[in-house]
Amino acid sequence: MEFLVRFETSQPATMSVDERERLRVIERERAMELRAAGILIKLWRLPGKRGGIGLWEAPDATALHDALASLPMFPWTENTVEALATHPQEKK
Amino acid sequence: MEFLVRFETSQPATMSVDERERLRVIERERAMELRAAGILIKLWRLPGKRGGIGLWEAPDATALHDALASLPMFPWTENTVEALATHPQEKK
Amino acid sequence: MEFLVRFETSQPATMSVDERERLRVIERERAMELRAAGILIKLWRLPGKRGGIGLWEAPDATALHDALASLPMFPWTENTVEALATHPQEKK
Amino acid sequence: MEFLVRFETSQPATMSVDERERLRVIERERAMELRAAGILIKLWRLPGKRGGIGLWEAPDATALHDALASLPMFPWTENTVEALATHPQEKK
Amino acid sequence: MEFLVRFETSQPATMSVDERERLRVIERERAMELRAAGILIKLWRLPGKRGGIGLWEAPDATALHDALASLPMFPWTENTVEALATHPQEKK
Amino acid sequence: MEFLVRFETSQPATMSVDERERLRVIERERAMELRAAGILIKLWRLPGKRGGIGLWEAPDATALHDALASLPMFPWTENTVEALATHPQEKK
Amino acid sequence: MEFLVRFETSQPATMSVDERERLRVIERERAMELRAAGILIKLWRLPGKRGGIGLWEAPDATALHDALASLPMFPWTENTVEALATHPQEKK
Amino acid sequence: MEFLVRFETSQPATMSVDERERLRVIERERAMELRAAGILIKLWRLPGKRGGIGLWEAPDATALHDALASLPMFPWTENTVEALATHPQEKK
Amino acid sequence: MEFLVRFETSQPATMSVDERERLRVIERERAMELRAAGILIKLWRLPGKRGGIGLWEAPDATALHDALASLPMFPWTENTVEALATHPQEKK
Amino acid sequence: MEFLVRFETSQPATMSVDERERLRVIERERAMELRAAGILIKLWRLPGKRGGIGLWEAPDATALHDALASLPMFPWTENTVEALATHPQEKK
Repeated sequence: MEFLVRFETSQPATMSVDERERLRVIERERAMELRAAGILIKLWRLPGKRGGIGLWEAPDATALHDALASLPMFPWTENTVEALATHPQEKK
Repeated sequence: MEFLVRFETSQPATMSVDERERLRVIERERAMELRAAGILIKLWRLPGKRGGIGLWEAPDATALHDALASLPMFPWTENTVEALATHPQEKK
Repeated sequence: MEFLVRFETSQPATMSVDERERLRVIERERAMELRAAGILIKLWRLPGKRGGIGLWEAPDATALHDALASLPMFPWTENTVEALATHPQEKK
Repeated sequence: MEFLVRFETSQPATMSVDERERLRVIERERAMELRAAGILIKLWRLPGKRGGIGLWEAPDATALHDALASLPMFPWTENTVEALATHPQEKK
Repeated sequence: MEFLVRFETSQPATMSVDERERLRVIERERAMELRAAGILIKLWRLPGKRGGIGLWEAPDATALHDALASLPMFPWTENTVEALATHPQEKK
Repeated sequence: MEFLVRFETSQPATMSVDERERLRVIERERAMELRAAGILIKLWRLPGKRGGIGLWEAPDATALHDALASLPMFPWTENTVEALATHPQEKK
Repeated sequence: MEFLVRFETSQPATMSVDERERLRVIERERAMELRAAGILIKLWRLPGKRGGIGLWEAPDATALHDALASLPMFPWTENTVEALATHPQEKK
Repeated sequence: MEFLVRFETSQPATMSVDERERLRVIERERAMELRAAGILIKLWRLPGKRGGIGLWEAPDATALHDALASLPMFPWTENTVEALATHPQEKK
Repeated sequence: MEFLVRFETSQPATMSVDERERLRVIERERAMELRAAGILIKLWRLPGKRGGIGLWEAPDATALHDALASLPMFPWTENTVEALATHPQEKK
Repeated sequence: MEFLVRFETSQPATMSVDERERLRVIERERAMELRAAGILIKLWRLPGKRGGIGLWEAPDATALHDALASLPMFPWTENTVEALATHPQEKK
C-alpha cells in the first residue's frame, strides 16, 4: 500500500554545524536502507522549504510509522501522512 | 489495517422526504453488510451534526475506498480518512 | 519538471447519469493521451474522496495548465498545484 | 459516555534522554491503570506523528479531564476532545 | 453535563416568508419545551449573525443530539458542540 | 453586557513549581474579587486543555479588558473575546 | 461602545437588476438614518470585494445587532463583529 | 502604488456557452484599456485554476477598486488585494 | 490613503520589567509624533489581547511601512495591513 | 518559467545587532548576483511585515530552490512558492 508523506524539518538553532552534518549523513544512510527495502520509493523537495514530499510503500500504517520513526531526524520532523488508493485508470 | 473516517452528509434541499427515507433504509442495509464482512467496525454520531465518525478495517486504502463508495449515500457524503497505526501500548 | 496536482471534482446534482458516464469515458480517453505523451505520470485516488492526487511532468506551468484544462472534466474540477524540485538524494 | 481524544506531545529539546524514558514508563503505568478502570478504551498512533488518537469512556467531561490531567505527560500534551453520541445503527 | 453549542442557520432563498415565520414560531415552542425540561439553559445571539451560542445540559452527547435534532430548524442549522467540564473555581 | 471569553494559558517551561503554585493562588483570589464584583459570571474548563471558557459581564469592552488584564496570569494567557447579544427568546 | 464590523454581501444570481438597484437605494437610506442616529460612524470599502468594514457605536451588542439587522440587505450579508476597547493612548 | 490581486472566477453553471464567450471577449477588451492606461501591469495564470494573479498600479485603493469593478466579470470574481511597498533593494 | 492595521505584540519572556517599561514609554512618544504628523489616526485595543487595531493614513504602502517600522516595538510586533477604499456612501 | 515567492524572515532574539547587519549586507550582495543572473526579477515588501514577495525566473523548481537556498538568510526564512503560468492575455 502506498502513502504520501509531507515532511518539514526544523532543527533547533542551538544545534552545531557538525551535528547537523552528522545527522544529514546518517539520515541519508538510513533513507538508502529504506529504499533498498522497497519502503521509501521516491523523495521530492518542495522549493524554498526545509522539507518535501515522499512516496512510501508499506504493508500498513504501523510499518510506515516504524520506517518514519527509524530516520535519525524524526525528532525534528513534522510528518503529514495520506493513505493512497489505486486510481481506476491505473488498474490493469 | 484500521482507518478513522469522519463523514458529513449534505443532501440537496430538493430531495423529497420519500427519497431521503428510501436512502436511509438502503444505506443502513449496506452498512450492515459491511459490518458483517468485518469492514465497518463501529459508527459514532457527532452531536448536532449530520454525520459522524466511523472505525473501519480494510486490507488497504483501495479496499476502504471501495467500501465507502458502495454506500448509497456516498454521492452526498464528504469523507476525511486517517490511516491508524497500532499504538505501542496495544501491542501484545 | 514534475508537479503534484491535488484534484477534487464536484459535478452539479442536475447532471444526468448518462452525461456523467459520457464525461467519465472521454475524461479517461484524454488522460490516456496525456499519459502517452509523457505528461501525466501517475494518478492516485484519495480514499473516500471524489478526487485524488496526480504526478505530472511538463516543461513549465503553462504547459501543465494547458494539459489540465484539456481534460473534459476541468470545469468541475478544483486543482491545487505544487511545483516539485529534485531531492538531493535522488540526484545521480 | 464516549469521547474521542486527539493528542500530540512535544517535549522540550532540553529534556534529557533519561527523563524522557522515565516519563514514558510512568505514562504507560498510569495509562494501564486508566484502562483497568475502564476509562481509557483504546489508543491508536497516527503514523509519522508524536501523538495519536484515543477512545475514552467517562461519566462526563469533568471526569475525562481529571483522567487526562492525571497522565504524567499532560504538561507536554495538546489534547483535542470530541464528545461522541451513539449512532442510530449501534442502538439495539 | 453542560455543553456549549455554537449554531448558524441558513435557510434556502426559495423558502417563503410564511414558511419562515411558521418555522420561527414552532422553533420557539420546541425551545420552550426544552427549557422547561432543563435541557436548554440559555441562548445568546452573536451580533450580526443568523445564529448564536447556546448553553445546554444533558446526561450525555446522545441526549444532547436528540434535543438538537428535535428542533424544527435542525435541517438548516450548522451546530458546533463543545463538552464543558467543571472549572476548579466552581467546585464547592 | 455579556462577553464569552475563550482562554488558553501557556506558562514557560522554565517557571518553577513554586512560582506556578503562587500564581495559581493569586489568580484564584483575583478571580474571586471579579466574581464578587459581578464581572466574572462563570468559568468552564475545556476537557484536556490548559484553559477554558468564561462568561463575563461588563459595561463595555474597555472594562472587560481591564478585568482580564488584572488577572495575574494575563501575561501567559491567550484570550479570544466574543460580544454577546440578548437572544429574542430570552427577552421578557 | 465601538464595534468593528467586517461585512460581505452575496446576492443570489437570480435577483433582477431592478431589485438590486431598489435594495441599494433603501440600504443607503437606512444607513443614512443610522448615521444620523450616531450608530453608524464610518464605512470603508475593501478594494475588489463586495463588502467592506464599518465602524459602529452602540450601547451594547444587542443594540448593534438590531441596527445591523435593520439594514435591508441583512439577509444577504455575512457580518463579523469585533468589540473594540479604548486604547490607553486615546485616553485623556 | 502597486497592488497584487489574486482572483478566482466562478461563473454559474446555468450560464450559456455564448454568454461565456461574449464575457471573455469584453473582459479582454476592458483589460486592454486598463493596460493602456497603465493601471493593469501584468497578469499571470495559476496552473489548474480558473483565475490567477495580477500586478496593478493605482494612485490608491479607491482607484484600484474602481478599475477592478469596471471589469465585466467582476460579479463572478473573488479578489484578494495586497498593498505592496517598495523593497529597499529596489530603491535607487 | 487609509489603511487598517491589526497588530499583536509578543515580547520575549526574558525581557526585564524595566526594559518593557522603557519600550512602552518610547513607543508612546513615537506614536504621538506619528499622530501629530497625521499618519496615525486612531488606535483601538482588542479586549483581552496584547495588541489591537489602528487606522493609519499614508500616501502609499511604502510610507506606511516606514511609519510602522519606526515604532520601537516593531521587532516584537506582528502587523496585518489592509488597504481601505472610500465607500460610495462616504463620497460627497 | 516564473515563480511567485512569498517570504517571511524571523531571526532569533539572541542574534546580535552586528550579526544582523552582517547578514543584511551579504544577503543584499547575493540578491544582486541573482538579479544580474536574471533569476531574481523583482522584490516587494509587504507593509508592516518582516518579509515580502519576490518574482523569480528559473528553468525549473530545482533551480529555483538552489537560488533561494543560496541566500545567506535562508535558514531564517519561510518561503511559499507558487508556479506561474503565462496568462492568455500576455501571449503575443
